[in-house]
Amino acid sequence: MSGKNILYAQSGGVTPVINATAAGVIETARTQASIGKVLAAKDGIIGVLHEQLIDTSVMRDDQVAALRHTPGGVFGSCRYKLKSIADSRAEYERLIEVFKAHNIGYFFYNGGGDSADTAYKVSQIGDQLGYPVQCIGIPKTIDNDLPITDVCPGFPSVAKYVAVSIMEASLDVMSMASSSTKVFILEVMGRHAGWIAAAGGLPVRHEGDPPQIILFPEVPFDEQAFLERVDTVVRREGFCSIVVSEGARAADGKFLSDSGVRDAFGHAQLGGVAPVIANLINARLKLKCHWAVSDYLQRSARHIASKVDVEQAYAVGQAAVEFAVAGKTGVMPVIERVSDEPYVWRIAEAELADLANVEKTMPANFISADGFGITEECRRYLKPLIRGEDYPPYDCDGLPEYLSIEHCLVDRQLSDWRSR
Amino acid sequence: MSGKNILYAQSGGVTPVINATAAGVIETARTQASIGKVLAAKDGIIGVLHEQLIDTSVMRDDQVAALRHTPGGVFGSCRYKLKSIADSRAEYERLIEVFKAHNIGYFFYNGGGDSADTAYKVSQIGDQLGYPVQCIGIPKTIDNDLPITDVCPGFPSVAKYVAVSIMEASLDVMSMASSSTKVFILEVMGRHAGWIAAAGGLPVRHEGDPPQIILFPEVPFDEQAFLERVDTVVRREGFCSIVVSEGARAADGKFLSDSGVRDAFGHAQLGGVAPVIANLINARLKLKCHWAVSDYLQRSARHIASKVDVEQAYAVGQAAVEFAVAGKTGVMPVIERVSDEPYVWRIAEAELADLANVEKTMPANFISADGFGITEECRRYLKPLIRGEDYPPYDCDGLPEYLSIEHCLVDRQLSDWRSR
Repeated sequence: MSGKNILYAQSGGVTPVINATAAGVIETARTQASIGKVLAAKDGIIGVLHEQLIDTSVMRDDQVAALRHTPGGVFGSCRYKLKSIADSRAEYERLIEVFKAHNIGYFFYNGGGDSADTAYKVSQIGDQLGYPVQCIGIPKTIDNDLPITDVCPGFPSVAKYVAVSIMEASLDVMSMASSSTKVFILEVMGRHAGWIAAAGGLPVRHEGDPPQIILFPEVPFDEQAFLERVDTVVRREGFCSIVVSEGARAADGKFLSDSGVRDAFGHAQLGGVAPVIANLINARLKLKCHWAVSDYLQRSARHIASKVDVEQAYAVGQAAVEFAVAGKTGVMPVIERVSDEPYVWRIAEAELADLANVEKTMPANFISADGFGITEECRRYLKPLIRGEDYPPYDCDGLPEYLSIEHCLVDRQLSDWRSR
Repeated sequence: MSGKNILYAQSGGVTPVINATAAGVIETARTQASIGKVLAAKDGIIGVLHEQLIDTSVMRDDQVAALRHTPGGVFGSCRYKLKSIADSRAEYERLIEVFKAHNIGYFFYNGGGDSADTAYKVSQIGDQLGYPVQCIGIPKTIDNDLPITDVCPGFPSVAKYVAVSIMEASLDVMSMASSSTKVFILEVMGRHAGWIAAAGGLPVRHEGDPPQIILFPEVPFDEQAFLERVDTVVRREGFCSIVVSEGARAADGKFLSDSGVRDAFGHAQLGGVAPVIANLINARLKLKCHWAVSDYLQRSARHIASKVDVEQAYAVGQAAVEFAVAGKTGVMPVIERVSDEPYVWRIAEAELADLANVEKTMPANFISADGFGITEECRRYLKPLIRGEDYPPYDCDGLPEYLSIEHCLVDRQLSDWRSR
């Protein structure tokens, strides 16, 4: 009988490259004689609780390889956080029960800070219940908010999408500005930290280059200063291009997107800070605005992924298997930056206990003194991350060949969860 | 002395490939001994009236070549429609005056139906004023609403962007649907015709594939039928992916985007039908929605342009010069489809008089009977247009190498326009 199985689960919002991590796990595991199968949780940890486990051993090599260039989360993900062991002991026990039933020796949890926390707790409860499991976290989050790791896989591709998109849209508004639209606003993700918005600053190489204004969650919105800046930029450059984080807030801490926009029935409108900013500029400066909200487009745009990101996402998956084979547990492979120029990175090892529930925000010295742009320190950090293109293959009809697969679930061994 | 000069002007909203047309004009003109310089109007026809003419003869060959992969309108465009000759005689006379002063023998107007109309009128006034100019229209519009031509350069690249984007975002929402967002809505352009929204249907290969719903301007919005469809799709597929045209309207003809959304100050919100649809679904079906508005991103996304589109955009520019050399006037090079499969197209010649102010809407048989999708006829038409990729070059920092140039204006010969 071959060795114990790996259980791989994705957690939280997906990224353009989380499946590349899955490819790294599965392809590496297939080369290891000491490891059995890789089972993938359907829809994340919820799938483990419900014993819905996908058998990846029936996937052909070309299907596994296609994971590397397929966005979304092929096995499904979920937003579900396990509470403390004291509060949710039954859930943790169920996990261990499922692990036992399917000969799981290794639990890989691919997510952000919450997932690191869960993986850490699972490693503890396994020991307590006499079924030790090697628990390894694998980093992923477009928000780039994990500590210790230099960068979170997923973020660089979103950064590249945002940088390329604002560069292109700025060329558009610049062409039209003499007689039509003068302001363009792009809303990007990042509710708590401005990492993604900061990436919008990468195309700025000279004073006055677009985007001329970035609005960060870290900088309280000063309406007067903002409107003055827009006015100045339009007078000087003829147009103004703006990147705004969905997490931009007023001085009182309230999200700008929650500033009272109501539909015809009086319902608060869901999200959308870009239209709020556009309305403000239009009402106060009488300038014609266009706005875009990139939402899921930014975090699924595998077609414009960063090559560095794809390589790092794959490498952390590969490293997780290598850590498992080396007998490690309670750890996460992270990205360590060796040098900025030339950009050199390597895989390092971090303790899950140090990663769990710690949020890395933008350093203060990454935001320019006026609060509307990024500093040279920030540019030095971000610049190498979006290097290189890694295009997916396209079919003869001009669409990307993303993996489409019917999953094969392993036979269940246990009774239903919560229906016992 | 070499031959007369070409005056090239861009009109209306720009596209990802309008500069490829400019490259076709300039590169071809440089091979023609009978043609002098190519002058480009700064900011479209307004630049002609103000005698702001860019001398493209000082552009290096590599700069001209870079036009082929640069989005936006490098020389600037404008939204400005000349009225009838009777109403705006002074403007037409001014154009001819500028033409005379700069030895213009050929006027190339690169735009949609309005521009074809203007080019046609300019050809008439030139004759009347004893300064005949060969006027040639060059097709461009992402709305794909010009008659006669099989397709308008610019549209296929927007179609590709929309098809790829909705395909990617659908993979995202599909991964999250079991515990989180169940509906994703992408808003696309096309105020009067559903061509761009229709392109969202291209990734649908099997029953149930996303996007499961497309909302066209041509189909009056039926709230009840729509909500039932969303509900059915979510029950069956677990999620629902929707493409909505900015021009989607209620049965009374009012834009859905104008359905009473107000900001905190009571101002009508600028645009945005996607949030209106999201609110409706959330309020009535209690389903979590995400929405994106692609706005300028879609029409500047040169990074994911259609190769067919780039080739056609270049070819109409090239053909305009060939038409000019052949002594033609009052015409437009158009795209003629020879066959669907294999896709074969060629340049044909159309009369400006037949193109002016005629809007081509979607044929009724391109929209499925239920009004929520495209038919096989539509698919057959659209499919070849998005074939092939034509990536721009990227620099070592991972950003596209789009042309950035300081324009060189030719010396003015005339007094100020409107200040005489």
